[in-house]
Amino acid sequence: MLIDAPLRDLLAAFASPDPTPGGGSASAVASAMGASLLLMVAALPKTRSNSDEDRAALAAASSVLTGVRQQLTESIDEDAAAYDRVVEAYKLPKGSEPEKSARTGAVQRALRGATDVPLGVMRLSAAALAQAKIVAEHGNPSAASDVGVAEALLRAGLEGARLNVEINLGSVKDQAYVEAVRGELSELRNVS
Amino acid sequence: MLIDAPLRDLLAAFASPDPTPGGGSASAVASAMGASLLLMVAALPKTRSNSDEDRAALAAASSVLTGVRQQLTESIDEDAAAYDRVVEAYKLPKGSEPEKSARTGAVQRALRGATDVPLGVMRLSAAALAQAKIVAEHGNPSAASDVGVAEALLRAGLEGARLNVEINLGSVKDQAYVEAVRGELSELRNVS
Repeated sequence: MLIDAPLRDLLAAFASPDPTPGGGSASAVASAMGASLLLMVAALPKTRSNSDEDRAALAAASSVLTGVRQQLTESIDEDAAAYDRVVEAYKLPKGSEPEKSARTGAVQRALRGATDVPLGVMRLSAAALAQAKIVAEHGNPSAASDVGVAEALLRAGLEGARLNVEINLGSVKDQAYVEAVRGELSELRNVS
Repeated sequence: MLIDAPLRDLLAAFASPDPTPGGGSASAVASAMGASLLLMVAALPKTRSNSDEDRAALAAASSVLTGVRQQLTESIDEDAAAYDRVVEAYKLPKGSEPEKSARTGAVQRALRGATDVPLGVMRLSAAALAQAKIVAEHGNPSAASDVGVAEALLRAGLEGARLNVEINLGSVKDQAYVEAVRGELSELRNVS
């Protein structure tokens, strides 16, 4: 699994011409780093005013971010697996009509899977960006640059995941699904 | 070393309240992923028009990006080491005047080191962004989303590194150094 690989090897895998891991997994890594940095700031012994209100707000943010970070981390491998299934589906035989029909069904199912994973990364990145505002408001001001880096990484993860949603969505034929995803994309575009 | 750690452990280290690794190393990881994805697209067997011109342009871009990726990868650990030296310098004794003077000198040297590393990440990210334009122009159009993700990651790495330069530069007393860095920051701000 990618998350068990040494960082050095993961970077080499991104640089190799093999289809996975690609931009979808890299976007999930960026957002997982962003959520992790927010958890770091929320866990610092000092807070903005060392008040109980700060500690309660940061504890609540940490609780949300712990789940978000876990799901973003799982998305790193899920994105690669989902895209591998698209590649496999395209390799299915298409000699006869029943084969063609089975292949089309498999490709369409795989494409929806490869759309759903980065769409999930977009939702999780947006959820972490909402918590970043709370961490910035209540966290140790000397860690402000870490919150800023976290926000830059989460925005990059959100944007990178959006590019992956759109490229896969372009080949999905189920118009009800396509329109539902497009609606969610335009809502998530307003997140910052 | 961070680059030898499994990704799962690296993310946990970012989330821990220990001072390093922090946003500086995370920014270098983002840019190293961006440079890696550009190398992936440049290494694909298909190019935009499968012309010799494409292949020559992509080979030249790969040559630059290989060095940039290597230096960005080294910056991941260098940033953490540079910040650890700042923390160590602040712990030096300050009981006597000679101790105070030695401590101030050590802190100032360490702060410049902790400014130089993210400044280098900014330069490398800008260099990779320049190559992204060449990869987009000559590379396989079906990998356009990977180029887009690479650009988003490199911009996040550039921005994250800038935040780290500025926070350390704020404590540097050598005004000639501070002004030289500020001049370079405003040039690098125009990169996109």
